[in-house]
Amino acid sequence: MDAGTLWQDLRKIRAESPLVHNITNYVVMNTTANALLAVGASPIMAHAVEEVEEIVRVAGALVVNIGTLSLPWVEAMVRAGQEANRRGIPIVFDPVGSGATQLRTTTARRLLHDAPPAIIRGNASEIRSLVFAEQGTKGVESAHASEETLEAARSLSRQCRCVVSMSGVKDFIVAEDSIVRISNGHPMMTRVTGLGCAATALTAAFAAVNPSPFQAAAHAMGLMGIAGEMAAERSPGPGSLQLNFLDVLYTIAESDIGSRLRMNAV
Amino acid sequence: MDAGTLWQDLRKIRAESPLVHNITNYVVMNTTANALLAVGASPIMAHAVEEVEEIVRVAGALVVNIGTLSLPWVEAMVRAGQEANRRGIPIVFDPVGSGATQLRTTTARRLLHDAPPAIIRGNASEIRSLVFAEQGTKGVESAHASEETLEAARSLSRQCRCVVSMSGVKDFIVAEDSIVRISNGHPMMTRVTGLGCAATALTAAFAAVNPSPFQAAAHAMGLMGIAGEMAAERSPGPGSLQLNFLDVLYTIAESDIGSRLRMNAV
Amino acid sequence: MDAGTLWQDLRKIRAESPLVHNITNYVVMNTTANALLAVGASPIMAHAVEEVEEIVRVAGALVVNIGTLSLPWVEAMVRAGQEANRRGIPIVFDPVGSGATQLRTTTARRLLHDAPPAIIRGNASEIRSLVFAEQGTKGVESAHASEETLEAARSLSRQCRCVVSMSGVKDFIVAEDSIVRISNGHPMMTRVTGLGCAATALTAAFAAVNPSPFQAAAHAMGLMGIAGEMAAERSPGPGSLQLNFLDVLYTIAESDIGSRLRMNAV
Repeated sequence: MDAGTLWQDLRKIRAESPLVHNITNYVVMNTTANALLAVGASPIMAHAVEEVEEIVRVAGALVVNIGTLSLPWVEAMVRAGQEANRRGIPIVFDPVGSGATQLRTTTARRLLHDAPPAIIRGNASEIRSLVFAEQGTKGVESAHASEETLEAARSLSRQCRCVVSMSGVKDFIVAEDSIVRISNGHPMMTRVTGLGCAATALTAAFAAVNPSPFQAAAHAMGLMGIAGEMAAERSPGPGSLQLNFLDVLYTIAESDIGSRLRMNAV
Repeated sequence: MDAGTLWQDLRKIRAESPLVHNITNYVVMNTTANALLAVGASPIMAHAVEEVEEIVRVAGALVVNIGTLSLPWVEAMVRAGQEANRRGIPIVFDPVGSGATQLRTTTARRLLHDAPPAIIRGNASEIRSLVFAEQGTKGVESAHASEETLEAARSLSRQCRCVVSMSGVKDFIVAEDSIVRISNGHPMMTRVTGLGCAATALTAAFAAVNPSPFQAAAHAMGLMGIAGEMAAERSPGPGSLQLNFLDVLYTIAESDIGSRLRMNAV
Repeated sequence: MDAGTLWQDLRKIRAESPLVHNITNYVVMNTTANALLAVGASPIMAHAVEEVEEIVRVAGALVVNIGTLSLPWVEAMVRAGQEANRRGIPIVFDPVGSGATQLRTTTARRLLHDAPPAIIRGNASEIRSLVFAEQGTKGVESAHASEETLEAARSLSRQCRCVVSMSGVKDFIVAEDSIVRISNGHPMMTRVTGLGCAATALTAAFAAVNPSPFQAAAHAMGLMGIAGEMAAERSPGPGSLQLNFLDVLYTIAESDIGSRLRMNAV
């Protein structure tokens, strides 16, 4: 797993334009649809219980994101997820704000149980909330990854038999027996809403073309970090960053990835 | 119908700022509101059954867009549409994803029956789904217009006694007895979410100032294509394109339209 | 209250990153989240009745915005507002479109009664609708502030024992016994959706760090106006304006505020 395999997957996404079904939050729908289009994938957003099974069936991957949760959406998430499970379509789950309220924590745990994902993509406090009984995340911001947090990710990965993609200043892709650290990215990215959710959506695009969830998660976070830092270098502020991020996803070349990717086994 | 009449309508929109009522999808609400503001119109988004009739009553046109459908919204679409029909306010209907699921196809057909639009604005596969029994659109992307597809549009137009505005690499405005082809636009536009929905919203703005749905649809698609290609020429990627598209809608001059419009009778 | 106190509050927001809970409309969620992030605050959007009380409890301020209203959201607004009242957390209320429909006017008045805000932030016709029995706002646009309208704001402030922040070509911050006028801003701002709602969100960020609602409202509108005019000066159209507005919020310096703020007691 390196710049070469990342580039190979990106070329596949651009060539095959996999359909990614998103059941996600209101705040970021536009951003994540645009990120998927810019990278070369085909997004579809649909949340009605009456149609999610039909949609996910023809998709290459499913995103489930609980950022603006309400009960009718949970039902749709479960149904779409179960259909994805039956068909072997990978689910990427983003437990936005898990730990901040009972509703989110409970829903996140229910989804892990009822519609097991191939990849969980969240920040450290969200990942912790899925393992420990503690409550009290402050908003949806990321916390730093301590040794204890990394242990939580490892434990979650074991428990759910899935890959845990934990974002932060450094990103960690955690599977049962191996961990990769990605050190790309830029602090200004935390001042744009929806970039975490875009990371989740891109992870789904990679999962649609790569049968290894571990590789898909690592490739996606590598691309996110590189695109984010390239965009930030030409952006005076977060408004420009959001725009440049999409432009970079669209134009990024093999040499950009080759010269910038900082991915290491831990 | 030419650059002169398009410009005349655009000046009217800028001068009169017609109110356009939108019942549309979550993904594009921001984009279409901004497109309407940039062109000079006044958008209002409202979907509660308790208020849609009151709102549409004072609007110059109604947009109905089924991109992120759920049952309570369908009810509001029907009610708003029927009130618009009673008052002679033109409806522009965007059957987003019709053909992809039973829910969307059924809802689209129900809306055509219960609240007949003045203009249907969709891509080829959506238009086909309203005429043929086939299922299986891939996402919400546009397909190319074949001769058979053009025939479908003509048949739909006859059946619904409305104008069909079918977008694609070339756009076709189809009425019972005449067809116009517009050859503006740029491939990068397909990498920005919501530009199809923006086309629908702009069509409604033109329908609010021009009593001929055929002219309104043609003018709107001409403006879309020109603004899209002008924006794309100065955009390294789809992030910039979205921004430049709004700037062009705001600043576009008579000479831009005169020198670029490629609209022909078929 | 002057450029110095505004700058002091802005530094506090950047240093403390107060959590702002938003129950707001679909159209602007992305815009207002980004405005809050750009200014240094931490946004969270949550609208489920099952979790709003838990969320607002840890927030520094609550935004209630009725721009795309439906009944389940009203219930969440009331519950969140009442919990905020119990905890002494300031509510900033944006009665978007009040006066345009019975549902909005009735809901706005109910919210004023059931969950009294610290600050009401709206345009002139919305403010008028909360005081007079008249109906018939055209969309969600701002009207000019006449002497009569200023009297309405004063009367509303007295009646609700809250600050009224009335935006328009000039903004007026109205408390029982004092009025401040802010003359910053730029006409192009009316061609970008969600800037009024961003003003409301920024008002909440200031209210989270300044115990005086009158000062918080004035500081927020001063910053909005200055950031808007700085952004407009470098923007050929509203697409650029939206982006530059976020960049300016992120980069604005004490000297920008000092040289530009036009705030006067009336």
